Amino acid sequence: MTATAVTVLGLGAMGSAVAERLRATGRTTTVWNRTAAKTAPHAAAGSKTAATVAAAVAASDLTLVVLLDHAAVRERLEPVAADLKGRTLVDLTTTTPNQARESAAWAAAHGIRYVDGAVMAVPAMIGTPQARLLYSGDHDAYTDALPALEALGTAEYEGADAGLAALKDMALLSAMDLMFLGYVQAIAMMRTAGTAAADTAADVEAWLAAMLPHGRGIADVIDGGTYDTGGQSVDFDRRGLASLINASREQGVRADLLEPHLKLLDELAATGRGASDWPRIIDRLAIRE
Amino acid sequence: MTATAVTVLGLGAMGSAVAERLRATGRTTTVWNRTAAKTAPHAAAGSKTAATVAAAVAASDLTLVVLLDHAAVRERLEPVAADLKGRTLVDLTTTTPNQARESAAWAAAHGIRYVDGAVMAVPAMIGTPQARLLYSGDHDAYTDALPALEALGTAEYEGADAGLAALKDMALLSAMDLMFLGYVQAIAMMRTAGTAAADTAADVEAWLAAMLPHGRGIADVIDGGTYDTGGQSVDFDRRGLASLINASREQGVRADLLEPHLKLLDELAATGRGASDWPRIIDRLAIRE
Ligand SMILES: NC(=O)c1ccc[n+]([C@@H]2O[C@H](COP(=O)([O-])OP(=O)(O)OC[C@H]3O[C@@H](n4cnc5c(N)ncnc54)[C@H](OP(=O)(O)O)[C@@H]3O)[C@@H](O)[C@H]2O)c1
Ligand SMILES: NC(=O)c1ccc[n+]([C@@H]2O[C@H](COP(=O)([O-])OP(=O)(O)OC[C@H]3O[C@@H](n4cnc5c(N)ncnc54)[C@H](OP(=O)(O)O)[C@@H]3O)[C@@H](O)[C@H]2O)c1
Repeated sequence: MTATAVTVLGLGAMGSAVAERLRATGRTTTVWNRTAAKTAPHAAAGSKTAATVAAAVAASDLTLVVLLDHAAVRERLEPVAADLKGRTLVDLTTTTPNQARESAAWAAAHGIRYVDGAVMAVPAMIGTPQARLLYSGDHDAYTDALPALEALGTAEYEGADAGLAALKDMALLSAMDLMFLGYVQAIAMMRTAGTAAADTAADVEAWLAAMLPHGRGIADVIDGGTYDTGGQSVDFDRRGLASLINASREQGVRADLLEPHLKLLDELAATGRGASDWPRIIDRLAIRE
Repeated sequence: MTATAVTVLGLGAMGSAVAERLRATGRTTTVWNRTAAKTAPHAAAGSKTAATVAAAVAASDLTLVVLLDHAAVRERLEPVAADLKGRTLVDLTTTTPNQARESAAWAAAHGIRYVDGAVMAVPAMIGTPQARLLYSGDHDAYTDALPALEALGTAEYEGADAGLAALKDMALLSAMDLMFLGYVQAIAMMRTAGTAAADTAADVEAWLAAMLPHGRGIADVIDGGTYDTGGQSVDFDRRGLASLINASREQGVRADLLEPHLKLLDELAATGRGASDWPRIIDRLAIRE
């Protein structure tokens, strides 16, 4: 039954969770890992093991790759292009959009059906609906692989451009990263008055939950594109940011996390955009040659 | 009935909302504004008007100040210290913690009962429970003023140090600012693939709502203080940040908003802390002499 057979390359924290979940949902699994010892528990639990990547990919029509990074993927897959021909390859390794596009171009040149994946979950979440997995690339290959992929978590197809899953992954992770930095900045400031981090975090969580929907207003201003809706202006925001930065420094806390925002606003003001709605900073984020 | 009389200094967007709400809840109000014309609608609605700041503060035992900034407050109040003696002054003007402390010291030197306030709301929210107003300073004065202050929104007393309301205001606004920058960064990245800002914002909102509670984990690591809980390490986070930054730049989007995080992690790695839990960056935020 090759339709249900899946090969997993890479048995780190994430690859192990993936292999385990595929077994638990009744798939015939073949596993390979650079450090062969890590295959032992999987063999004991019922997986087949392969001594080489070539043997591993030959064992199933569907191969999932879960290695450390793009370089490791390229290093291991390029020698087995011929073995992968006509088969489906889903790369769950975290990459940039362009790296995913590079893998897709390589796969196309070798007759390999390629889907790029981005795992928005920690290994413990694999197999639950909370695990969100984004996919992009060959839609037919995605559809064929879907019964297996759905075992891993909620699957979302982003489009034929293989870079789209990684792009959305990176965009959402960037937003999360900045939100978590907000916790750190607030905790750092409140610690100067002896407030425990846990107390500040509880306050921040409630406040951000209330403010979260206002992101839609920012988006509407950006989609509108005129930046003259009469909302908070660049100059208004510059005053506010300067206050936040001064308050942070006065309390003995570096304002490095807040400074780029003021710098972007200052760039707008310097080009005569002080009266524009502040979300116009997005235009300054465009890299100019 | 001086107990219910309130003077409002400043009739900008916020001061007007404050005066209007106090009238609506039955207070006798006296208003003053630098540009006298702005008092007219308030007079028409039943407020008394004062021609000078001295006359305004003499009219009530409680004065609320809602001017543009700390400099405007100092400029207008220092000449009327004698008129304020023995009365209660609540400064709702946005200031840094140290500016609030400066006002408190000045008030104490002149026998004025001083409370600093921070308004976490836009004018349209004044008078609703969603308007959150933080207060710090003289607790007795706060308690006496509370019936009037509660008309403005949910009142929270932060402590006797007059800087505490401004500190919490600035800490929460900093967290909000970074969260909104997260929307902007994600929107900027997704726009390169033609995704409308509104679509990205909807995605970001759902994702951040799910991730919000993880701020508690960051706080626990910081309160623990050992940074060896085995969570995501500085070195792990450096890899992740480098991916986000590369992805952003590859898509033609400046990564300025993300760079300070990587810089702080690099500082930790350079001082031998690469294996520590990443929230240790909070230590790097301390300004060293
Ligand atoms: N863990 C998470 O929370 C998480 C969440 C989302 C996405 N991801 C992504 O999932 C992927 C795997 O992460 P992980 O947590 O499983 O990492 P991990 O536990 O460090 O495992 C890394 C895996 O990559 C293999 N590897 C590294 N370099 C290699 C090379 N040059 N050739 C062959 N194999 C190589 C390792 O083999 P050895 O055993 O021989 O070292 C191991 O199997 C990463 O791209 C990561 O960004 C992880
Ligand atoms: N609006 C908001 O959403 C909001 C939210 C939270 C906190 N706040 C804070 O509330 C305060 C007032 O904000 P706002 O929105 O009401 O501002 P605004 O509409 O610009 O009004 C500013 C007020 O300050 C007065 N003023 C400025 N410089 C002065 C000076 N040197 N001497 C005397 N009066 C002076 C103005 O008088 P003229 O009429 O003569 O110009 C006006 O009454 C600020 O500290 C702001 O940060 C505002």
